[in-house]
Amino acid sequence: MAKEGITARGKDYSQWYLDIVDKADMAENSGVRGCMVIKPHGYAIWEAIRDAMDERIKATGHVNAYFPLLIPKSFLMKEAEHVEGFAPEVAEVTRAGGEDLTETYVIRPTSETIIGSTYAKWIRSWRDLPVLINQWANVMRWELRTRPFLRTAEFLWQEGHTAHATEEEAERETLMVLHDIYADVVENVMAVPVLRGLKTDREKFAGALRTYAIEAMMQDGKALQAGTSHNLGQNFARSFDIKYTTADNREEYCWTTSWGTSTRLVGALIMAHSDDDGLVLPPKVAPTQVVVVPIFKNDAERSAVMEAVDRITADWKGRFRFKIDDRDNLSPGFKFNEWEVKGVPVRIEVGPKDVQKGTVAISRRDRPGREGKAFVEQAGLTEHVAQLLDEIQTALFERALTFQREHTFEVSSYDEFKTQIEQGFVRAYFDGDGNDEDRIKAETKATVRVIPFDQPEAEGTCFYTGRKTKQQAIFARSY
Amino acid sequence: MAKEGITARGKDYSQWYLDIVDKADMAENSGVRGCMVIKPHGYAIWEAIRDAMDERIKATGHVNAYFPLLIPKSFLMKEAEHVEGFAPEVAEVTRAGGEDLTETYVIRPTSETIIGSTYAKWIRSWRDLPVLINQWANVMRWELRTRPFLRTAEFLWQEGHTAHATEEEAERETLMVLHDIYADVVENVMAVPVLRGLKTDREKFAGALRTYAIEAMMQDGKALQAGTSHNLGQNFARSFDIKYTTADNREEYCWTTSWGTSTRLVGALIMAHSDDDGLVLPPKVAPTQVVVVPIFKNDAERSAVMEAVDRITADWKGRFRFKIDDRDNLSPGFKFNEWEVKGVPVRIEVGPKDVQKGTVAISRRDRPGREGKAFVEQAGLTEHVAQLLDEIQTALFERALTFQREHTFEVSSYDEFKTQIEQGFVRAYFDGDGNDEDRIKAETKATVRVIPFDQPEAEGTCFYTGRKTKQQAIFARSY
Repeated sequence: MAKEGITARGKDYSQWYLDIVDKADMAENSGVRGCMVIKPHGYAIWEAIRDAMDERIKATGHVNAYFPLLIPKSFLMKEAEHVEGFAPEVAEVTRAGGEDLTETYVIRPTSETIIGSTYAKWIRSWRDLPVLINQWANVMRWELRTRPFLRTAEFLWQEGHTAHATEEEAERETLMVLHDIYADVVENVMAVPVLRGLKTDREKFAGALRTYAIEAMMQDGKALQAGTSHNLGQNFARSFDIKYTTADNREEYCWTTSWGTSTRLVGALIMAHSDDDGLVLPPKVAPTQVVVVPIFKNDAERSAVMEAVDRITADWKGRFRFKIDDRDNLSPGFKFNEWEVKGVPVRIEVGPKDVQKGTVAISRRDRPGREGKAFVEQAGLTEHVAQLLDEIQTALFERALTFQREHTFEVSSYDEFKTQIEQGFVRAYFDGDGNDEDRIKAETKATVRVIPFDQPEAEGTCFYTGRKTKQQAIFARSY
Repeated sequence: MAKEGITARGKDYSQWYLDIVDKADMAENSGVRGCMVIKPHGYAIWEAIRDAMDERIKATGHVNAYFPLLIPKSFLMKEAEHVEGFAPEVAEVTRAGGEDLTETYVIRPTSETIIGSTYAKWIRSWRDLPVLINQWANVMRWELRTRPFLRTAEFLWQEGHTAHATEEEAERETLMVLHDIYADVVENVMAVPVLRGLKTDREKFAGALRTYAIEAMMQDGKALQAGTSHNLGQNFARSFDIKYTTADNREEYCWTTSWGTSTRLVGALIMAHSDDDGLVLPPKVAPTQVVVVPIFKNDAERSAVMEAVDRITADWKGRFRFKIDDRDNLSPGFKFNEWEVKGVPVRIEVGPKDVQKGTVAISRRDRPGREGKAFVEQAGLTEHVAQLLDEIQTALFERALTFQREHTFEVSSYDEFKTQIEQGFVRAYFDGDGNDEDRIKAETKATVRVIPFDQPEAEGTCFYTGRKTKQQAIFARSY
């Protein structure tokens, strides 16, 4: 039974998503076309993801910096594929300080060009390499159809931009970011399992040599690209003249990379875990991990219950992110509902009977109803809660992984492909080219999400071309 | 003796500042008019300030959120004083997605208008109040004359926006932010003493009822406004229709506040502490607090020295932010210079003789040369360093406070005023109006920085009007 105001997933998944964003108080449309307001609850979740990402970005040797929001339009034009990819969707600043500008600026849709032009000034010799820099910023892409978190005109992200002496180093960086930063955060913090691999030329970043991605499965079987890492080769180095002098005094172009993750991840989080009752949050990203609801009818009960609540939570500070919901104008039922919709992983109720018995009632958000409710001793509760939070984190990941596996299908013919793609991901031998991908997309709305890293040893038959090949691809419809 | 490439403060303070920003690798001009690139070292200092600020913002009950970068130009026009203050310096987006827009957007110069229009939707009843929200964001003001950190077209900042039921509550919030967040961070983290008080009507924020500020003295005796907190009264509430229903069912306008600090603070930090040798950083904001430079001439020495260095620093992780500078292509002298210019508070040298004697040489950045150098035992070094960092933090604050006091002059006549304002701040009885302030500014370049909270009990004579008054003001030239 779905909560009031939340459409059931089975009825209309797309509306369900919008309802969750709304009812869990995460974001709302603004008066600005395609731009959302990220509300405090949504922003706190983004902060948790961002902090986990930032920690890993720094631990792997990168430093943060900040480059201008505005980019001279002429910069965008310098890399041929890049301009083709981004020029149609930029917002342009043509007036400032009350005057028409002689040079038009665009609001950054991504910063390869402005950062590339800066690196060209910074890098002189092999001793200056590698340059390992990340930026946290807002970017803007004038999208026609927007959905909160998933696709908005303005979004928040991090973009890493590195420069290296050799192709091997750039490639190692590109893959390290994908595995050790992106997949690690998405799987081990957000509890969302991902598939990792290479994008086809059709799907790669505008201007990249190779794009790697992590792809997550949403509960409707569609894919969400959760992070991309690009080996840019020497393309941007040539366009922006990023050169270095080698140890033996030759001049070479640098090899550069770029990689990004964004507030889209909040959308991925919602769609991977939540249910018809509202948001479901993994403890590691939950702004509130535990809510304690004291239950009482009169002042005498109140004082006994609150005394127990204070005792129980005395050693929680710095250990859990918790709230004691002692608002006196709201019923327990109203509070339960509110915290459920907002996705708080653990709810603890303490009433007069619990005080007498030395117990509390403890409920898991990931298992709604009786199944997830238990009565436990107040003594040792802190340890119990710590363990429960770990369990929930693991259970959410396992549940999502099982779902992903059960909705990934191997097919050997295009007919089978067309049937199975309705249900989830399809993994199949595929050696088609970009034109084949276009036709498959036109006919089924599915695209190659990745050429996964784990490939079979044995040869097979391409489901589309009928040719023998050793390459498998993962297809899905996507957000 | 100044370092190579750094102009002496005494010779040209303004050029000295630019040299420090450049040589300490903090920021540089970009290809975009008036916008800087914040380089990793500058950004890491900003991160330290930002984190200290964010911690206090949250500890005082605020939550973060995010509002759109673009603001419909029509929003900006709604509050009469506000539009007058900001309209001349906005950047305008007139095209997007390849088409001319029917509505022009401006890049936020500040977000009262877009946030006010959102609060009007969020707030219904007294139970929704107070709303206590902060945003970390970039903003843009098309300034003609820019200087890195101090005045740039784009800058990074936090802007708090709160709504309250009563004027008293709004006033309490405005002052709490000034004292418990802003002054606390600037004095106790950045080690920069501030003067606190009210802005005159001439100097207040465009659209505010009252503006409070903290003002810091730079080493040239000029003032830098380090943070402002505005009681907006019901001005924005009326313009944006932010109303609530009281407990007894009346409809009232909210009382709102806004308050901000920005990357200017990095400029304040530089100008308060640094010297002719480069940047001087208080330990609490130093990205690297301690640098250890091993000194050796051959492999045998290297191995003995590095063994000692590893032993000394074994328990430093998580305790200090430190670097071991074992780059083998650079001389110790080159390294000393680099870390001095970059402002690292403590430098430790370990050479073969130190290994024999069980000592290290330890130097304080805040006391260059022999005065700040000592030889201390390796045993107990961790405690010694911890204590030294505390000492340096305190010493920098005390030094700046002494400087501020020695350069603040009480005057009783306009003639005296004109002489003393060349040397620093002037504190004087003043009851002039805005026109008087304008004339004083035209003649001396000085403005009222604040009407300080600490006012005398006794009446005195206004240095300008000659009238009796109980009010003193602090004047200075300012950044």
